[in-house]
Amino acid sequence: MAQLGLVGLGKMGFNMRERLRASGHDVVGYDRNPDVSDTASLPELVGALTAPRVVWVMVPAGAPTRNTVAELAELLTEGDIVIDGGNSRYTDDTANAELLGTHGVGYLDVGVSGGVWGKENGYGLMVGGAEADVERAMPFFDALRPEGPREEAFAHAGGVGAGHYAKMVHNGIEYGLMQAYAEGFELLDASDVVSNVPEVIKAWQRGTVVRSWLLELLVRALDEDPELEELEGYVEDSGEGRWTLEEAINNAVPAPVISAALFARFASRQRDSASMRAVAALREQFGGHAVKTKKVTG
Amino acid sequence: MAQLGLVGLGKMGFNMRERLRASGHDVVGYDRNPDVSDTASLPELVGALTAPRVVWVMVPAGAPTRNTVAELAELLTEGDIVIDGGNSRYTDDTANAELLGTHGVGYLDVGVSGGVWGKENGYGLMVGGAEADVERAMPFFDALRPEGPREEAFAHAGGVGAGHYAKMVHNGIEYGLMQAYAEGFELLDASDVVSNVPEVIKAWQRGTVVRSWLLELLVRALDEDPELEELEGYVEDSGEGRWTLEEAINNAVPAPVISAALFARFASRQRDSASMRAVAALREQFGGHAVKTKKVTG
Amino acid sequence: MAQLGLVGLGKMGFNMRERLRASGHDVVGYDRNPDVSDTASLPELVGALTAPRVVWVMVPAGAPTRNTVAELAELLTEGDIVIDGGNSRYTDDTANAELLGTHGVGYLDVGVSGGVWGKENGYGLMVGGAEADVERAMPFFDALRPEGPREEAFAHAGGVGAGHYAKMVHNGIEYGLMQAYAEGFELLDASDVVSNVPEVIKAWQRGTVVRSWLLELLVRALDEDPELEELEGYVEDSGEGRWTLEEAINNAVPAPVISAALFARFASRQRDSASMRAVAALREQFGGHAVKTKKVTG
Amino acid sequence: MAQLGLVGLGKMGFNMRERLRASGHDVVGYDRNPDVSDTASLPELVGALTAPRVVWVMVPAGAPTRNTVAELAELLTEGDIVIDGGNSRYTDDTANAELLGTHGVGYLDVGVSGGVWGKENGYGLMVGGAEADVERAMPFFDALRPEGPREEAFAHAGGVGAGHYAKMVHNGIEYGLMQAYAEGFELLDASDVVSNVPEVIKAWQRGTVVRSWLLELLVRALDEDPELEELEGYVEDSGEGRWTLEEAINNAVPAPVISAALFARFASRQRDSASMRAVAALREQFGGHAVKTKKVTG
Repeated sequence: MAQLGLVGLGKMGFNMRERLRASGHDVVGYDRNPDVSDTASLPELVGALTAPRVVWVMVPAGAPTRNTVAELAELLTEGDIVIDGGNSRYTDDTANAELLGTHGVGYLDVGVSGGVWGKENGYGLMVGGAEADVERAMPFFDALRPEGPREEAFAHAGGVGAGHYAKMVHNGIEYGLMQAYAEGFELLDASDVVSNVPEVIKAWQRGTVVRSWLLELLVRALDEDPELEELEGYVEDSGEGRWTLEEAINNAVPAPVISAALFARFASRQRDSASMRAVAALREQFGGHAVKTKKVTG
Repeated sequence: MAQLGLVGLGKMGFNMRERLRASGHDVVGYDRNPDVSDTASLPELVGALTAPRVVWVMVPAGAPTRNTVAELAELLTEGDIVIDGGNSRYTDDTANAELLGTHGVGYLDVGVSGGVWGKENGYGLMVGGAEADVERAMPFFDALRPEGPREEAFAHAGGVGAGHYAKMVHNGIEYGLMQAYAEGFELLDASDVVSNVPEVIKAWQRGTVVRSWLLELLVRALDEDPELEELEGYVEDSGEGRWTLEEAINNAVPAPVISAALFARFASRQRDSASMRAVAALREQFGGHAVKTKKVTG
Repeated sequence: MAQLGLVGLGKMGFNMRERLRASGHDVVGYDRNPDVSDTASLPELVGALTAPRVVWVMVPAGAPTRNTVAELAELLTEGDIVIDGGNSRYTDDTANAELLGTHGVGYLDVGVSGGVWGKENGYGLMVGGAEADVERAMPFFDALRPEGPREEAFAHAGGVGAGHYAKMVHNGIEYGLMQAYAEGFELLDASDVVSNVPEVIKAWQRGTVVRSWLLELLVRALDEDPELEELEGYVEDSGEGRWTLEEAINNAVPAPVISAALFARFASRQRDSASMRAVAALREQFGGHAVKTKKVTG
Repeated sequence: MAQLGLVGLGKMGFNMRERLRASGHDVVGYDRNPDVSDTASLPELVGALTAPRVVWVMVPAGAPTRNTVAELAELLTEGDIVIDGGNSRYTDDTANAELLGTHGVGYLDVGVSGGVWGKENGYGLMVGGAEADVERAMPFFDALRPEGPREEAFAHAGGVGAGHYAKMVHNGIEYGLMQAYAEGFELLDASDVVSNVPEVIKAWQRGTVVRSWLLELLVRALDEDPELEELEGYVEDSGEGRWTLEEAINNAVPAPVISAALFARFASRQRDSASMRAVAALREQFGGHAVKTKKVTG
């Protein structure tokens, strides 16, 4: 069993520590929240590890991850490895790898999929970086992924950045899949032909072409709230869908489904759409069509 | 100058009567609303016309038009012509033509574009039906269309149904055009790079590639309300966009822009989207992502 | 064990007979192809069954199914049941049920999902019709569906038509799911960041959020042909996607993903797009942009 | 009348020189092509102008424009002004303005619309930069824009970058408008209800809601080639559509129409779509659906 430093013990990192420890690994965790942290600081974490060290960073993408990597570059020594397992944009990886490289520290970028279920089911892993570094970290990958054939939940996707790129596309697909189920749900809900929508969706879980893990989650959600009436139709997005679309643009790849899924989220967050006000204004102008005007008080 | 019976004196029909009379035609109008009607009933209208008659129907599409045509079939006599100038679905035209045909009455379907501005500017006209009937009605078409070359505002599109089909596609395009301007407006509005959005849009009126009549109407709307803040982003649809999309499906024609424009209208009318509740539910299930829940009281 | 007449022994029906027989049911099959048929004609099939009979129709949707139902209406007697398990449009079901009803024959419409894998894995089933008829046919449904809890692969979706409606929406979702994976595949393929695309997709099979049966099939396809280079990007559609979109229109439900997936198929079948010729023509007109012209010989 | 240096005498710059000279301005042009150039080099151009100078750059966006601006920064002196009238990305403008600013040279970014017709019709102009610089350049703007009220073809859109931003959105809208007309054309073409498609489109030029300059160009194209059969359905894109979509993403603005128009162009350039091969592969896997395979020889 091997030793791992783990920075970031939020929803994902906390569960990963549990799963790694259950596999017998020696995990030393650090988080700003002392209630969950094993060490008081990042230097203390590094000090607690025996060189050559492997430190897995599991903090929010963007500045938090970049800053953590920069701090680690100062603390770690030649032969150590840093793994960024967050949802970083793949374009961050080259800079991270270069910075660490000047200190002789290796770098792997890992896309980690599985959400809060990963602790129990294992995580799907997509890794970018050098083969030797991947081999060094394999015991941790093997502990994190589901049991069974390694290649069904782990891939060495390519050089630095390839892991996050693969995860980015994975999440872009995820947007499309969710929206496809959602449109079907809304149509079944809107029509009165099918009298028991949750039962129909439940029956898609086995045998059908649309069976999937996301469908099983939809069944769970409908079990708890058969009309999904306690939720608002308000959906955030966390970056990967946008990046996927930007990559599609950069590569001249048509992505109508992924973009439609992203735009549906954007629209879900608008109280009143400027574009639809413009369309309403145009209809009023040319046709004298009735429009809804806001009640303006006193 | 010629004599025309005109059934339906609403927003469109009323203005058309004005324009036809201004050209010197003898128009006898009938409307259920006695304040605008020239005659007390449809039979009285027919009685007031000298055979062979031309009767232009300008009532709402669907049952009102079909019923009016059916009534006229009983009242008119061989050699008369009925013109349906409403936004009927082209599939209604064959039935109308057949019914009238059994009485020896001709039938033309006319797509009329121009909205409330047609009285002043003239109307664009797309006509379906037999050549001889089109010739008989040409004086009215010439009066209704703008001055200038006939072929720039009038087309004999084909046999029965072709006029409404052309108008249907015209309106489908119109949906796409309006949505394109609307998306551009929303982006200019959302970004803070352009400091005076109405001035920019005003400046697109001449010289640019995007200049159009719809753009001029958008400028008018922004003149009255620079942020379009008195309107709600709530947009009805009146059928032609749906039919265009259904025809695209029937002919296996990709129509991503027209469908996107139609769906934006559908979405604009939803208080809370069932599909987006489903996406929110899925995200909560797999990721523990925060969702908005409705406040349930009591 | 129970007795079933099965009309149509093609790709689906043949496999279903196998699975039903493997469960111990007595299946008498009829197909126009004598090589696979148990009986020489539909009357002979009916004659071979003991009343009250259950006859499952598994022939192509549209006229073939309607004609078979009409024939059966003449051959069957009060208390018998006809099941349409094909991909019929749900609007056909009411007519079928009424026709059979005049002969005292019951009717169930069943959406059957699972493709060629159903024989081995079992089929997902969505059923429309009367509760008593559903109960009568339950032994066959139980044999056809996968083992395990009935409600995970079988639903009584509602009255006549509800089974096919549920299957229609299922297939609409399926279009969206496939297109989402396909866009992700194309982006991975077009970019050079990920060096081993099939390995990455293979690694999505377990642990990830996008794991599904369709993903496993994509892995199979990539195992056989890692670049999918032996296939043409030409995709048929068999009706359910179109109907789903038409139902979305009828119910004013935004369906951007399902429509995008359908339009991608339409476009895949065009050698040269008239709309894109129009865009090329416009760009040439206003900008003198270079266009590709066809080589005209002779 | 005023003096202007004009760098870049291609399709746009050449025509602009003509129009400016026709207004009486003294234009000194430079182009790498000696056949059209008034001067032998950029330094010679600058030498030929009387300070304080105004130099209008009209070369391809990206490196050519950036390099020209950098050269001019070395050649010009305090109080001069550089105008970038190309289709530069608005994010280039800040860097250009800063570089020139260190030499005391002012900077304006101008979006110029009108294509090859601008020489005759005048150009629509959207300008970003300081008010004083805009005033200095106004004689040239007035000469380039169509006659009539200034505000209908000219806007001072905001600070540096606002001119190109406005032009970017203008072009994004243009993509959507063209695709809307194109889809309508394709549907009319595919259906056989309308027997004379070019005549119908010609008749949309006056009176209708969809009348526009682009429509008039489509009529011109159809006059020359009624089926547009000499063109290939292959459409390039030159950046602004992509940037508009990226800005929509950055501002969380749904842009389904503009993205659909862009993706249609991407797809038009693909010989064989990887995504559609993936969909075909999936259908073959689950349904045994017939697929088209490529003929592999040898």
